[in-house]
Amino acid sequence: MEELKIINQIKSKKSFLCIGLDVDLNKIPKFLLKQEDPIFSFNKSIIDSTNKHCIAYKLNIAFYEAFGVKGWKSLEKTINYINEHHPEIFTIADAKRGDIGNTSKMYAKSFFEELNFDSITVNPYMGKDSVEPFLEYQDKNTIMLGLTSNQGSKDLQLLKTNEGYVFMELIKSSKTWTNSKNLMYVIGATKTEYIEEVRKIIPNNFLLIPGVGAQGGDLNEVCKKSMNSNIGIIINSSRGIIYSSNDVDFAEAAKNQSISIQKQMEQILIQSNLV
Amino acid sequence: MEELKIINQIKSKKSFLCIGLDVDLNKIPKFLLKQEDPIFSFNKSIIDSTNKHCIAYKLNIAFYEAFGVKGWKSLEKTINYINEHHPEIFTIADAKRGDIGNTSKMYAKSFFEELNFDSITVNPYMGKDSVEPFLEYQDKNTIMLGLTSNQGSKDLQLLKTNEGYVFMELIKSSKTWTNSKNLMYVIGATKTEYIEEVRKIIPNNFLLIPGVGAQGGDLNEVCKKSMNSNIGIIINSSRGIIYSSNDVDFAEAAKNQSISIQKQMEQILIQSNLV
Repeated sequence: MEELKIINQIKSKKSFLCIGLDVDLNKIPKFLLKQEDPIFSFNKSIIDSTNKHCIAYKLNIAFYEAFGVKGWKSLEKTINYINEHHPEIFTIADAKRGDIGNTSKMYAKSFFEELNFDSITVNPYMGKDSVEPFLEYQDKNTIMLGLTSNQGSKDLQLLKTNEGYVFMELIKSSKTWTNSKNLMYVIGATKTEYIEEVRKIIPNNFLLIPGVGAQGGDLNEVCKKSMNSNIGIIINSSRGIIYSSNDVDFAEAAKNQSISIQKQMEQILIQSNLV
Repeated sequence: MEELKIINQIKSKKSFLCIGLDVDLNKIPKFLLKQEDPIFSFNKSIIDSTNKHCIAYKLNIAFYEAFGVKGWKSLEKTINYINEHHPEIFTIADAKRGDIGNTSKMYAKSFFEELNFDSITVNPYMGKDSVEPFLEYQDKNTIMLGLTSNQGSKDLQLLKTNEGYVFMELIKSSKTWTNSKNLMYVIGATKTEYIEEVRKIIPNNFLLIPGVGAQGGDLNEVCKKSMNSNIGIIINSSRGIIYSSNDVDFAEAAKNQSISIQKQMEQILIQSNLV
């Protein structure tokens, strides 16, 4: 998917919200557990109720893989449902894959061909040749982990080299990789003190920003520091939206929560003269 | 699986060989493609012919995931076959997973509970809280990426901080994580110049060493620099064994290649007074 399509979607929906479908059977309404495929039933209702207010869905692959073959079936059904009914929506396989070249190639085949996601999150620990097989798909986006929102980000990403922080050196390197224009970057919303510095290195690439809501990031501050003239950010919220209620009104509650965030985003877009 | 069981297996088989089951449909014998599940048929034959000469099988998850639900079925059948017929063998899910805590927990559930692997490879880019959910399973082993054998290892792992290389700082940190005694580490065979330094930091943990053979590492040199008094290493070979022939004799050829490596390992164990 070209970034232009994302930007057009943001402008028409006045939203840069991504909804994370991290479906935990312990958290969804109990009555759904009687259905044949509770994960897909839950997702379908959430997608039906929220698709006008978000521009992307992010499927956290771990939550499907945890159920083996059955989970992969729910995953397939969910991505197919989005692609069929809402082809304008940007889809993210939140898989954090990465391995030596011939193996990354197989992961790319899985998520880009077999499942037909628009993008995948990748883990850059193994460097250039572990990420480039994903970048070969020029009609797709590869979203590289930069600075994550969790505590453990200090154990490696925030180590200091002579040139700066490890994660920033890595982002600098990534600009030299083949097809790097298709890169987006994960930058956690809890790390606003680093975002302006990141923007100097990659002024034009889209950022995928998780951590607003449940993990504690502040929407206004994050946007102020990370937006560019093409908007340039997608903000993810998972638990804060999909578990707004665990009763029969769960889809309606998720919709209301999405609208509430979309309204805040609309205000920010207006104030920044971006719509 | 306790490490004692691995050590006992090494001593009785006089082998510390792990065979990597990275099954590529373009490389397996053509006649297998007519079967209902070519990947499982191939694996079963390889396992039947090589299990006396190796101590571990490593399943590269990407090669299964690339075929979606069908691939996950082949994966399930393969791990179940090993666990049922060769329960002494150490099984490795080469998955390189890692994410924020609640997500890593789901990946751990997938590979340790749903599929019942003895161990999993994990990617430490997100630090302590992304790895500890795997370490909670105290009867399992968590194999953390340290220094990988590919070119891209220089892009991050070999960046220098004030204290040393990034990957070494990370290995030092990992020693402080909860249940760190269950950690093993991936150290590529092409990186012998760093192994002695690594051994000073983690003298006792097992190392999983890929990159002998197809990727260019030398067996004798690697062993000399990495073994400890409990042997302490598992050497992986994938393509160099399983694609020894792509004709009807493929399983026999893989067996012969395994025996040839096992004999070299036996010599090394004898010379080092470890058997």
